[in-house]
Amino acid sequence: MTTTTKTNIDQLCINTIRTLSMDAVQAAKSGHPGTPMALAPVAYCLWQKYLRYSPEDPIWPNRDRFVLSNGHASMLLYSLLHLVGVKAVNPRYERLGVPAVTLDDIKHFRELNSKCPGHPEYRWTSGVETTTGPLGQGVSNSVGMAIASKWQAQYFNRPNFELFNFDVYAICGDGCLMEGISSEAASLAGHLKLSNLCWIYDNNHITIEGNTSLTFSDDVATRFLSYGWNVTRVGDANDLEMLSRAFDVFKATDDRPTMIIVDSHIGYGAPHKQDTSAAHGEPLGEEEIRLTKMRYGWPPDAKFLVPEGVYEHFKEEIGKRGNQLEQDWYHLFDEYKKSYPELADNLDKMQHRQLPAGWDKDLPTFPPDPVGIASRKSSGQVLNAIAKNVPWLLGGAADLAPSTNTRLTFEGAGDFEADNYGGRNFHFGVREHAMCAIVNGMSLSKLRPYAAGFFIFTDYCRAAIRLSAIMEIPVIYIFTHDSISVGQDGPTHQPIEQLASLRAMPGMITIRPADANEVVEAWKVIMPLHHEPVVLVLSRQELPTFDRTKYGSAAGVAKGAYVLADAPGGKPDVLLLATGSEVQLCVKAYEQLIAEGIKARVVSMPSWELYEAQSQEYKDSVLPPNVTARVSVEAGSTIGWAHYVGMNGTVMGMKSFGTSAPLDMVLQHFEFTPENIIKSAKAQLARVQNPTPGAQKE
Amino acid sequence: MTTTTKTNIDQLCINTIRTLSMDAVQAAKSGHPGTPMALAPVAYCLWQKYLRYSPEDPIWPNRDRFVLSNGHASMLLYSLLHLVGVKAVNPRYERLGVPAVTLDDIKHFRELNSKCPGHPEYRWTSGVETTTGPLGQGVSNSVGMAIASKWQAQYFNRPNFELFNFDVYAICGDGCLMEGISSEAASLAGHLKLSNLCWIYDNNHITIEGNTSLTFSDDVATRFLSYGWNVTRVGDANDLEMLSRAFDVFKATDDRPTMIIVDSHIGYGAPHKQDTSAAHGEPLGEEEIRLTKMRYGWPPDAKFLVPEGVYEHFKEEIGKRGNQLEQDWYHLFDEYKKSYPELADNLDKMQHRQLPAGWDKDLPTFPPDPVGIASRKSSGQVLNAIAKNVPWLLGGAADLAPSTNTRLTFEGAGDFEADNYGGRNFHFGVREHAMCAIVNGMSLSKLRPYAAGFFIFTDYCRAAIRLSAIMEIPVIYIFTHDSISVGQDGPTHQPIEQLASLRAMPGMITIRPADANEVVEAWKVIMPLHHEPVVLVLSRQELPTFDRTKYGSAAGVAKGAYVLADAPGGKPDVLLLATGSEVQLCVKAYEQLIAEGIKARVVSMPSWELYEAQSQEYKDSVLPPNVTARVSVEAGSTIGWAHYVGMNGTVMGMKSFGTSAPLDMVLQHFEFTPENIIKSAKAQLARVQNPTPGAQKE
Repeated sequence: MTTTTKTNIDQLCINTIRTLSMDAVQAAKSGHPGTPMALAPVAYCLWQKYLRYSPEDPIWPNRDRFVLSNGHASMLLYSLLHLVGVKAVNPRYERLGVPAVTLDDIKHFRELNSKCPGHPEYRWTSGVETTTGPLGQGVSNSVGMAIASKWQAQYFNRPNFELFNFDVYAICGDGCLMEGISSEAASLAGHLKLSNLCWIYDNNHITIEGNTSLTFSDDVATRFLSYGWNVTRVGDANDLEMLSRAFDVFKATDDRPTMIIVDSHIGYGAPHKQDTSAAHGEPLGEEEIRLTKMRYGWPPDAKFLVPEGVYEHFKEEIGKRGNQLEQDWYHLFDEYKKSYPELADNLDKMQHRQLPAGWDKDLPTFPPDPVGIASRKSSGQVLNAIAKNVPWLLGGAADLAPSTNTRLTFEGAGDFEADNYGGRNFHFGVREHAMCAIVNGMSLSKLRPYAAGFFIFTDYCRAAIRLSAIMEIPVIYIFTHDSISVGQDGPTHQPIEQLASLRAMPGMITIRPADANEVVEAWKVIMPLHHEPVVLVLSRQELPTFDRTKYGSAAGVAKGAYVLADAPGGKPDVLLLATGSEVQLCVKAYEQLIAEGIKARVVSMPSWELYEAQSQEYKDSVLPPNVTARVSVEAGSTIGWAHYVGMNGTVMGMKSFGTSAPLDMVLQHFEFTPENIIKSAKAQLARVQNPTPGAQKE
Repeated sequence: MTTTTKTNIDQLCINTIRTLSMDAVQAAKSGHPGTPMALAPVAYCLWQKYLRYSPEDPIWPNRDRFVLSNGHASMLLYSLLHLVGVKAVNPRYERLGVPAVTLDDIKHFRELNSKCPGHPEYRWTSGVETTTGPLGQGVSNSVGMAIASKWQAQYFNRPNFELFNFDVYAICGDGCLMEGISSEAASLAGHLKLSNLCWIYDNNHITIEGNTSLTFSDDVATRFLSYGWNVTRVGDANDLEMLSRAFDVFKATDDRPTMIIVDSHIGYGAPHKQDTSAAHGEPLGEEEIRLTKMRYGWPPDAKFLVPEGVYEHFKEEIGKRGNQLEQDWYHLFDEYKKSYPELADNLDKMQHRQLPAGWDKDLPTFPPDPVGIASRKSSGQVLNAIAKNVPWLLGGAADLAPSTNTRLTFEGAGDFEADNYGGRNFHFGVREHAMCAIVNGMSLSKLRPYAAGFFIFTDYCRAAIRLSAIMEIPVIYIFTHDSISVGQDGPTHQPIEQLASLRAMPGMITIRPADANEVVEAWKVIMPLHHEPVVLVLSRQELPTFDRTKYGSAAGVAKGAYVLADAPGGKPDVLLLATGSEVQLCVKAYEQLIAEGIKARVVSMPSWELYEAQSQEYKDSVLPPNVTARVSVEAGSTIGWAHYVGMNGTVMGMKSFGTSAPLDMVLQHFEFTPENIIKSAKAQLARVQNPTPGAQKE
């Protein structure tokens, strides 16, 4: 009798998830009902028996993570968050005491301001661990979260204080597994033997275009075995007993990640749409919903029904278990604070994205040097100087650590490997896309990660970089070899459009420093950020270190643009704007122009985004509106510079791809020379002083 | 004795490749010597005995393709092209009768204008089948080439006329295999059972950061078995006998692609650098080169030495065999012309990127319609109307054919599958990146492919799209769901920066049509292109079809921008610029402004790149320089619009990510409304007519 009751309530809960999902999609007239219907038992089994999760505190540091990588099945997640009664938290980590997702939110699925947008959005909806929708990202984030668990365990745990041991579960479909990023992430997870990572593959045989047999013949089990994973299968998504066994296998596996392949039926229970692509991405239709509900033994006309006992069961069976775990953890943490006050303080700071006192005490300054130092190299020095004082600042490159100068070389930094989860240098391999998604996962777990590579290869990982920006998490991207000055590697390796492309990305801060001291200032801007990802764009080649006694202070970097070298009396007639390695060319041109009595000003403009955030007054002081003779110089796409130099200013940039030759030859070839800047400056002055009759007024 | 001599000349040839590579890298003071040294026997064995390739005619349509996916090992390819005596061809397919690569080119490796740039560049160097360097691209291109071989065989071959049966060989390293794109491509190649495809994996255990064991633990053989490949191994890259056996296995396998895993020694023969990452990406150094040459039995101080007999051997043993095959083929083709004149004509046209007569005879025109039709849908109609008259226009979507309307639905179009290589609809799966690299490979084999998906997912495949532009091949990208108007799917699916990002890419033409007739005109522009890839950017939602008797002709699309609706007498006071779905908003605003007596002009601007290619006169006629009151409207990043509206014009665009809500709500939320445009237009007029004292002159 007890068993029957138990089964009944389980089934009731599962069908509540299903019917809420169906009803929400139908009400929105758009969405994806089929997968929530198929996977409701899987998610239910996991949440009910395994997930260590406190609805009262969805940001409890040691909670198990549940990632819905097939984000289009968002109603599965929203139903769970609602039924289990997850409470809302704001971006300042304050508990708001209100539900994260109300039934009303579900009724307004996909509507403006509902906590149930089309795809799960981190920050917007408490309990959503990461923004998903673009396929393959969630599973890759999950690898970063599993890494974070291992690292935090190694760094914080002490005898009798197992503060960190959280597991990470990610559900994915064939879409995620077809995306290359998931192969990259799975390969690395296997290499790192992340035993706290469990992927659940929804093997439903259906894609948008039809049956997966149209395009997908992978033997998924064999594929994951090749990555070094543990693989287990569940033949029927409705079989709670076998699901439990599979999760037990995961829990018992301590030397590798686990992949659970679950055969499921998309649109389970829908008499005409089950197992068809029609159940994937559109509402089932009123009549089909009625028929499906009847199959479930549901009142066919009831909408958004949560039957009696369901909330209670979620609260009693799932919520209570998790809340207790969380409370126990905080009791343990109270003890820990007494035994390890410094570590506890670090944990607090890390969780709140604060920096340890003295994080910047070892920052170098660079003396003037006409030869100078490549900004990738000065950045490497600064990174090391900071990282030794910020234990949770860690990261690595996509097989380019030596070239990007991103290796932490101080004692104890170590390599993060399967036999050293305390290491801080990551070998991401030639896997740029997974790298960026993995650092997103690490950042979501409150580490302060950086990811590095050649700037050109941002093209391989834009989708993940974009998610850093959408999620507003302070990932640090360090991309070097930033222009045609890469030289001999040629056009495939010379960035042209990458800077413009990243400037166009909302919420992303790009910084391209002109010399070593601008690099220092850039890091001073970056480190205190809480919510903004940054792309730091660095040179391969040496950049002279400017004499700051002669020129403006590099502290101007914080304002995005500043006057580096000015005309006498601060009254310029012509403005030379540049970023990064091209600033030195402007300075050379400036010296010549001044010598000729021409009133030029050099504006170093490392960050458009930081500049745009300044007051109009400051902006006008740097780029005086009445000085319309302007030349911008940047060895990249010209797109966007007209905003600063006007339609009739001169934009020196690249209109084509680069070429393979030694750096100096390349610059000559494309006419990035002080002479050319001087010529342009004079032409600008002539234009302003002697406008051609009939010429454009603006 | 003969055997010994044979072995000796083989070894001499192999060591010539090695020493040329070492010397070139040393002379350039940059490059990658280790892999050419390791793989020289592999490439030599392949070229000597298997590759069906005519040095006299490197564009012979049925040649086997040799792809160096690890493009940094470019000296391996250049050495081969030089030694075998490949002759140059220009972009108009004319034989130039001169070597593609001279010894002098090799001596000037990585220098300006050398035919030996840092990475192999298609078009620049005859014999280079595809531009490689960005890892994973070449192997993915090779899948497209293998597809092209299968399709061309199915379409052109007739009994006794086996015109197409070429094989495709691609060499790759661990870098290519770590990149997700190669997983995507391999998965699809296995699914499609491309038995004419052979990848050779250089298993040298070394990456830039050190040993591959730092990051790469895949069981590569098992992984490829999981994709449905045939896998074979060669234990020593120097073992020509076992290499031959492996290639024989490939040739004998007719039901799946073949992966040959070759264990090799990077920097083979270098006493201090073999098997180390030091041999990977920098010159060996003069002394190490001397020692290595001594190990090879080479005169240690001889540079760029091609010993006696080597050229002759390459010419006699390799060149002659291939030249004969090519001549036989052309004889066969002469016969074919007689039996199948129409097919032969198509083959000629396809090879020269010409279109069949009447390709445009079924193009629709769309009557005015205030409700209209989504541009993805009108494009689907146009695509079908063209494709039925252009047999080699084919392609597909990344599991989004129904949503992108890119399916060819006419009779006989069929699906390209393992049992139907004549099909023209491709199911690329959720593999955007491989899709784009595969269509690059198809285009390089002279098909006219298109690739489709949601516009937001260009982020997943930019690296491949960029290579279409670098290679100047006319791939057609059809990307739909082009703005925040995607609506309920929310910010993860709403493009913001994608259009600006693609406009910043050199050589790429973007076209975002405003209505169905602009779509028709866009396709008229696209189809005759020989060297330019295009991104066609289409709406999810309906767009009204403008009444062209009332407004300007859609033929203006060909010029990138044109006057759609004008002020009386063609004398506007304010310009409204827009693209795509925002043009209709400007037209609504225009009607109101005109009614109020305000002289507005609407400029539809579907393609910046096409507009920039026009004469200054035309440009000034569309955007008169003296009209500085300007408003641009585009539901995307604002970056770049200042070039057309000036620093003081109004740029209506997106400064943030989008939001999940029904389309109308989203547009209201972000204020894309005629009312807002009217307000901005009036403000612009006020600014121009009554400049504030002290305001910016420009």
